[in-house]
Amino acid sequence: MTEISSGAPAAPRSDPAVVDLLGVLAYAELIAFERLADDARLAPTLTDKAALAAMAVAEFGHFQRLEQHLRRIGVDPTVAMEPFVEPLDAFHDSTAPGDWLEGLVKAYVGDSIAADFYREVAAYVDAPTRDLVLEVLGDTGHATFAVDRVRAAIEADPAIAGRLALWARRLVGEALAQAQRVAVDREALTDLIVGGASGSGGLAELGRMLARLTEAHSRRMASLGLSP
Amino acid sequence: MTEISSGAPAAPRSDPAVVDLLGVLAYAELIAFERLADDARLAPTLTDKAALAAMAVAEFGHFQRLEQHLRRIGVDPTVAMEPFVEPLDAFHDSTAPGDWLEGLVKAYVGDSIAADFYREVAAYVDAPTRDLVLEVLGDTGHATFAVDRVRAAIEADPAIAGRLALWARRLVGEALAQAQRVAVDREALTDLIVGGASGSGGLAELGRMLARLTEAHSRRMASLGLSP
Repeated sequence: MTEISSGAPAAPRSDPAVVDLLGVLAYAELIAFERLADDARLAPTLTDKAALAAMAVAEFGHFQRLEQHLRRIGVDPTVAMEPFVEPLDAFHDSTAPGDWLEGLVKAYVGDSIAADFYREVAAYVDAPTRDLVLEVLGDTGHATFAVDRVRAAIEADPAIAGRLALWARRLVGEALAQAQRVAVDREALTDLIVGGASGSGGLAELGRMLARLTEAHSRRMASLGLSP
Repeated sequence: MTEISSGAPAAPRSDPAVVDLLGVLAYAELIAFERLADDARLAPTLTDKAALAAMAVAEFGHFQRLEQHLRRIGVDPTVAMEPFVEPLDAFHDSTAPGDWLEGLVKAYVGDSIAADFYREVAAYVDAPTRDLVLEVLGDTGHATFAVDRVRAAIEADPAIAGRLALWARRLVGEALAQAQRVAVDREALTDLIVGGASGSGGLAELGRMLARLTEAHSRRMASLGLSP
């Protein structure tokens, strides 16, 4: 990743693309909180419920870090988040989990793809922004929790694997649809990504980024016991 | 309140009534978290959403304090909470807010009555339990927030006051119904309350406790701009 970031100049802090990146992340964390808290209602045991609630609280902590950082660089967090409310809400509304396992797959597969993507983008921004992004993308323990629960459920009833694999494919499809919408609307953010990538090797680098995201997704699906 | 607590002997930490008190409180905090997080979805602005989410996180902190305390006195938190899952879930299922304002009234009116009640009961238990109960019942900022928002909404549209007053009455009715159910099922807890009260003046003290709860409720309704 080092060669990528050295290829891109450090963006000034008030760069609209940086504000967009922090804004979309902040809103994503705020609704990750809401969604995990909501999924906690589907938990089969009180222990699972409390575990999920604790992860939701960790996501809210990330939201607060981003909110504070935006304020510090003179940006109203609400204004920064606003452009991403509709596409992110649309994604979540169209992918409301039908049960506990679908909720776990969504949180694990969806959040991981998003985190991988934000990490790639972070390579193109200034160091303080990058450090913050990498910090708030830290695992909240959700990955291990989800993998454990989903694998155990598939072992107990192998028939559910097909349904969950289909579900994961739908999640990726809906996420891509919304990402495309954001790309059209938020020119600065799109330029940052495409420009950052082409600055370090043209569109081929963008292709490699997508390949890395896809590979990581396939590895996660396998770790869940699902075919990608 | 001092004369009440001095009238009751300090209960040993493993007292079933104390475990019940901590168990019901822990579960109440856990679902207060869930419910506030869920109400955050109804928030009209991102600022309100973030404020409600922050209060939900504070409730979860209270839950964790109670959970840790239960573990420290050798009690499995899940076992302590289990008897209260059904009545508390039944209360919340039967009083799902229809909109943002109903959610605020429920959180403020419902949580305050519950907090007043737990505080009264805390007078009858040992000092470490009492300190913990009083600590986790500390206001999370919800009261001022709810009063501000509800008063402003009534000022903007006085017609909604009648609907919200009815809603508050329904909340109290449903809460009493579930409390009665718990009283029948959990003898130790009921004995603690009735015994604690009668130890310091017989059933008359129990009557005074109920009068205090009712008066505080009326004051809160007035502060919201609602007739009790």
